[in-house]
Amino acid sequence: ERLADAIRDIFHRLQREMPEANLKQADLPRGAMPIEPEGTAPGFIIEADGKLLIALPGVPWEMKAMLGKTVIPLLSERAGGGALVSSEIYVVGLGESATHEKIADLVAAQTNPSIAFLAGRGQVRVRLTARASTREEAEALIAPVEADVRALLGDWAVPGAVDSLAEALGAILVERGETVAAAESLTGGLIAAELTRAEGASRFFAGSLVTYSTEAKHRVAGVARSLLEEPGPVSEDVARALAEGAARSFDADLGISATGVAGPAEQGGQPVGAIFVGACYRGRVEARRIRGYGDRSHTKAIAVTYAIDLGRRLLLHP
Amino acid sequence: ERLADAIRDIFHRLQREMPEANLKQADLPRGAMPIEPEGTAPGFIIEADGKLLIALPGVPWEMKAMLGKTVIPLLSERAGGGALVSSEIYVVGLGESATHEKIADLVAAQTNPSIAFLAGRGQVRVRLTARASTREEAEALIAPVEADVRALLGDWAVPGAVDSLAEALGAILVERGETVAAAESLTGGLIAAELTRAEGASRFFAGSLVTYSTEAKHRVAGVARSLLEEPGPVSEDVARALAEGAARSFDADLGISATGVAGPAEQGGQPVGAIFVGACYRGRVEARRIRGYGDRSHTKAIAVTYAIDLGRRLLLHP
Repeated sequence: ERLADAIRDIFHRLQREMPEANLKQADLPRGAMPIEPEGTAPGFIIEADGKLLIALPGVPWEMKAMLGKTVIPLLSERAGGGALVSSEIYVVGLGESATHEKIADLVAAQTNPSIAFLAGRGQVRVRLTARASTREEAEALIAPVEADVRALLGDWAVPGAVDSLAEALGAILVERGETVAAAESLTGGLIAAELTRAEGASRFFAGSLVTYSTEAKHRVAGVARSLLEEPGPVSEDVARALAEGAARSFDADLGISATGVAGPAEQGGQPVGAIFVGACYRGRVEARRIRGYGDRSHTKAIAVTYAIDLGRRLLLHP
Repeated sequence: ERLADAIRDIFHRLQREMPEANLKQADLPRGAMPIEPEGTAPGFIIEADGKLLIALPGVPWEMKAMLGKTVIPLLSERAGGGALVSSEIYVVGLGESATHEKIADLVAAQTNPSIAFLAGRGQVRVRLTARASTREEAEALIAPVEADVRALLGDWAVPGAVDSLAEALGAILVERGETVAAAESLTGGLIAAELTRAEGASRFFAGSLVTYSTEAKHRVAGVARSLLEEPGPVSEDVARALAEGAARSFDADLGISATGVAGPAEQGGQPVGAIFVGACYRGRVEARRIRGYGDRSHTKAIAVTYAIDLGRRLLLHP
């Protein structure tokens, strides 16, 4: 009944009528202990023979919240102490195998912390995981190995404990009291989406001009028509002009940009996967050519990664 | 060796040096038949005792492409004919339980086609799946049931066989030779990303103004400062002004917009989950208030769905 009330309450808050079928979500197996719900979907725990059976809903945001608030604390308590600590190093511009090759000796020698690789979308995360009886001891095991890994990876590794490149960029901007704006073509809003994924983005992100059509690049981002004719919209020159247009339009300190061909067909003489990213900061304007690969979504994700990374590097070496 | 050559070729095309470690990806178990690779990750098929063991890489774009080009055609051939056909109906504005309630009698009565519900992010897909000996027979089984479902769901169902709301909107615009532009705040580029997810978006999508900061809403999208002060940036008035600003900036026929509070904290007197979407077309301007729920990402996804849907409805009933 407590669950049924919670479900009625959700519909009441959303000012929607509740279908009777939703009350089925309050039915539980005999002996089950309900997990505090997030939405209307139920989760529960059954204990039998000293083992736990934990059922969670499939809706990602409900499952994640119930996992974090109830399940993980419970399991951690049952496990009776001990600490498993992870630290991740972000690597941009090197593939998974190339990253592995640079630190292969360390990987072979290490068992605690262990070293794992998580690759995707133009970046590789090197994850160091240590086990110890306390959190502090685990962190002490990780620290010297992390320093060695960072020394071997040099400039490819993003400094600091960051969850994403967007966080790394945001931290520098917030510290300086500065802002970033973007102008994007092939990424179609995904640079902006990545920069605003985490909360607090309003402290450093002004906005983005998604100039998908060639006409919009001139009309909205102020790119000169002559550049759009020659060398054309997918070029270093236009990447630079878009970055400048972004900073100017939003009156932002840093402008970043991406233009390219997501596919499936070539465009303006450029092949599928051609990407140009740009950045401008304190009068300095840069552009870089990247080769994307994979399907549309993967090519765009690579462009997002490199555009944010070019901005980050320009902030560090203006 | 053929696989090793394919991997060398990929690095050659990307103009990158190939780490020796990448050649490990050409090693296969004895007796395995390689699947034509997409990237460098291997996949293979082993047949034993008349059963197939199929191994595919974990990288989503490589796995999907290998599945579509090699695995599904192979399995379909082995299954020796017969057809399994699905058709999906998009529903916007009704929850999963409410959708179910409207067509519950049909669902209970049907076995071929069967009726399933796939819910998420402000939309529900009703999937009808029929089995028959040919594709034509399966489609003939689906047609009358689909008509019944659509009749019961009325205006909640999106007409036509569409894979997404963006496709439904795009099809109307392409037919009319018209374009859409967006202005978005809480969705941070995700309306643009959704409209450009599928290929061919350049035929109907001009661009989007991602005006995240309040100042950008005035400076870039031309929203009057007086509206930004009262009733404030999260309001019906500003949703309308953003839709107008989008259409004007890009010289587009349809303008759509979203503003709201993704969370975690309330903003300008509006609670977390408050969403206003707007649309303007041929001089008519509309706005609608929606209640979002779930985490940041879920609230934004709901805003994307309703902004595109409001534009679609305004196109159909101008």
